[in-house]
Amino acid sequence: MSGDRSATARHLPYGVFSVGGGDRRVGVAVGTKVLDLAETLRDPLFAAPTLNPFLAAGPEVWEQTALHVGAVLADADPSVLLSVDDVSLHLPVEVADYVDFYSGLEHATNAGRILRPGQEPLKKNWHELPVAYHGRAGTVVVSGTDVVRPCGQVPRPEDRPTLAPTARLDAEVEMAFVVGVPSRLGEPVPVEDFGRHVFGMLILIDWSARDIQAFEYEPLGPFLGKSFATTISPWVVPYAALTAARIDGPPQDPPPLPYLAHAQPRGYDIDLEFAINGHVVSRPRFATHYWSAAQQMAHLTVNGATLRTGDVCASGTVSSFNVATQGSLLELSLNGTQHLTLPDGTTRGYLDDGDEVSVSASAPALDGGRVDFGQAVGRILPARAG
Amino acid sequence: MSGDRSATARHLPYGVFSVGGGDRRVGVAVGTKVLDLAETLRDPLFAAPTLNPFLAAGPEVWEQTALHVGAVLADADPSVLLSVDDVSLHLPVEVADYVDFYSGLEHATNAGRILRPGQEPLKKNWHELPVAYHGRAGTVVVSGTDVVRPCGQVPRPEDRPTLAPTARLDAEVEMAFVVGVPSRLGEPVPVEDFGRHVFGMLILIDWSARDIQAFEYEPLGPFLGKSFATTISPWVVPYAALTAARIDGPPQDPPPLPYLAHAQPRGYDIDLEFAINGHVVSRPRFATHYWSAAQQMAHLTVNGATLRTGDVCASGTVSSFNVATQGSLLELSLNGTQHLTLPDGTTRGYLDDGDEVSVSASAPALDGGRVDFGQAVGRILPARAG
Repeated sequence: MSGDRSATARHLPYGVFSVGGGDRRVGVAVGTKVLDLAETLRDPLFAAPTLNPFLAAGPEVWEQTALHVGAVLADADPSVLLSVDDVSLHLPVEVADYVDFYSGLEHATNAGRILRPGQEPLKKNWHELPVAYHGRAGTVVVSGTDVVRPCGQVPRPEDRPTLAPTARLDAEVEMAFVVGVPSRLGEPVPVEDFGRHVFGMLILIDWSARDIQAFEYEPLGPFLGKSFATTISPWVVPYAALTAARIDGPPQDPPPLPYLAHAQPRGYDIDLEFAINGHVVSRPRFATHYWSAAQQMAHLTVNGATLRTGDVCASGTVSSFNVATQGSLLELSLNGTQHLTLPDGTTRGYLDDGDEVSVSASAPALDGGRVDFGQAVGRILPARAG
Repeated sequence: MSGDRSATARHLPYGVFSVGGGDRRVGVAVGTKVLDLAETLRDPLFAAPTLNPFLAAGPEVWEQTALHVGAVLADADPSVLLSVDDVSLHLPVEVADYVDFYSGLEHATNAGRILRPGQEPLKKNWHELPVAYHGRAGTVVVSGTDVVRPCGQVPRPEDRPTLAPTARLDAEVEMAFVVGVPSRLGEPVPVEDFGRHVFGMLILIDWSARDIQAFEYEPLGPFLGKSFATTISPWVVPYAALTAARIDGPPQDPPPLPYLAHAQPRGYDIDLEFAINGHVVSRPRFATHYWSAAQQMAHLTVNGATLRTGDVCASGTVSSFNVATQGSLLELSLNGTQHLTLPDGTTRGYLDDGDEVSVSASAPALDGGRVDFGQAVGRILPARAG
């Protein structure tokens, strides 16, 4: 193993794994290998079933750990590394609160035009603050967990709604930030303190039942249309790994209120791939996302709400006005009216039973390579008989 | 201590307390006394900092515990009971997900008329399903915790919004149910299984910043307008204590879809008191609440979403068309336009700094007395300087 592994150790993503039926513990991904931190570093922080104790330990511990991992990888016999095929990957964090932002300008515009034709696509608040809602933390699942097609009340024209499996099952492509260090009740956390609290990022699939959501969402927002499942990738990439990916985000006009002001660079140049049954249907670009994670965090806490270890905050759908880079079937199929053709000749408006959605992501690394976020994957199972 | 304590032990509410700086443990409230279950029953379920292990243990353990407590109280020397004045009360549950329903017909109608004048007060979904949103579990606090007046983006006519302390701080009077036994992902929990999963009820104050909420809530629902704090009472009353309080709920027209059908009696005859600075401003009646807790649970899970131990699901504001029984200042003051006069001669539209809100509740008990839910109390502190 070469010495340059030490320099790149801070790029490595953290996750939770087990071998056979053994205890869960923390590891880092080294390409297709896994380094067992509980075994290697012999620190109880890593002999834990979730990343939460490590996340709560804060930036100094995160930095020291990267240095230790680098030293281990520089010196170690490669045989200490496990093959990722020989381990089971688990939910990396015990999710405290799950928040879903709506911070992609193009996505919010597309969604507004499709779902509320004839109205202004963006509400007056959109350019003033990162709009968001709380989702269901208890149904955040790790990549690979099957997604049962949900039932719910589906509207019918000129009749009462009926309880039925959703006919408009969508997957929204998102990134998410994961909170490490908690904050205190009543004390806002400013944009510039982002790095003191937030550890890293992961990939998130925001499954959405469009028909259920359309009937239920006024006036209090989405509920059953989203709460059946949210899939996250098993690996969390530290922000420390993403310094080479920092770029200027898109212009913000009007300039945000002072508590949301964020000097450039505030963007991250992360490229995503959105695939159905292995076929890439689009390549969304996070670089163009409007509100940054630090702005989202500052907004979330400006009313005194706390951050907790394990909070997962999703970006909102990563999308654009160009079909090549749109991150939802709502947009790619214009709400099911324009079908996509897959290589096997079948077409899709929304997802069919048996479909497997996979989202991958990568970003430039300091060494000229790529930081690999891995994948978030979910397969659709048929609705259960009632 | 008399033998009838045994019969009434199943009425006793459960909470978490500590003495001095000692460990938190589970107790039951016996009037103004507390029985230490960790000490008395010598079961690790009760030597816990939250009720969660006991809640997860399920209905048979809940029933056995009530019998054991009854036996202890029948035989015990009264000196084993602690005075509630000598203990500190803590958050009774580690909150998993927090959901706030909107299931009071009169409240939703009043709120619609006040906030969206000229529109139908109720959306088309209201009579079909219990409308709800997820709130912030991390800011659910125990009674007695101060509430700092939140800042947020407040709209201004013909100008951009400004970051300011809310000028419309409200308290909504609610009841909430607390989940004990989790359910499995993808498997709906029917109305009739309510008692297998749900342990009990508590009092909840849904603090609301009306101006912040008004600007942010479209299209994804309330966020910062609610997420700064939610107060719950320290004692959880088991549903087993409430058999004498069961009554027919109000008629439901149209009849709910089959998965929401709930035979009578589905209501609970719980009387609340809503007080500001010790002065009762209204006496909301839970008896008239439209959607039952069992219907809410069935709806929440019909899409396959799981229940988790510690889920707290609030009823929605308990209110009416009569000011004597309205459960929010939005309604009592008609959004701040009609001031209430308190006994000290001061008037209120919304809450002032220094105000203490208290909500108490009680219900008929089998022995002809009352089941006492205790109180949820919070005092408003001034906004922090930015």
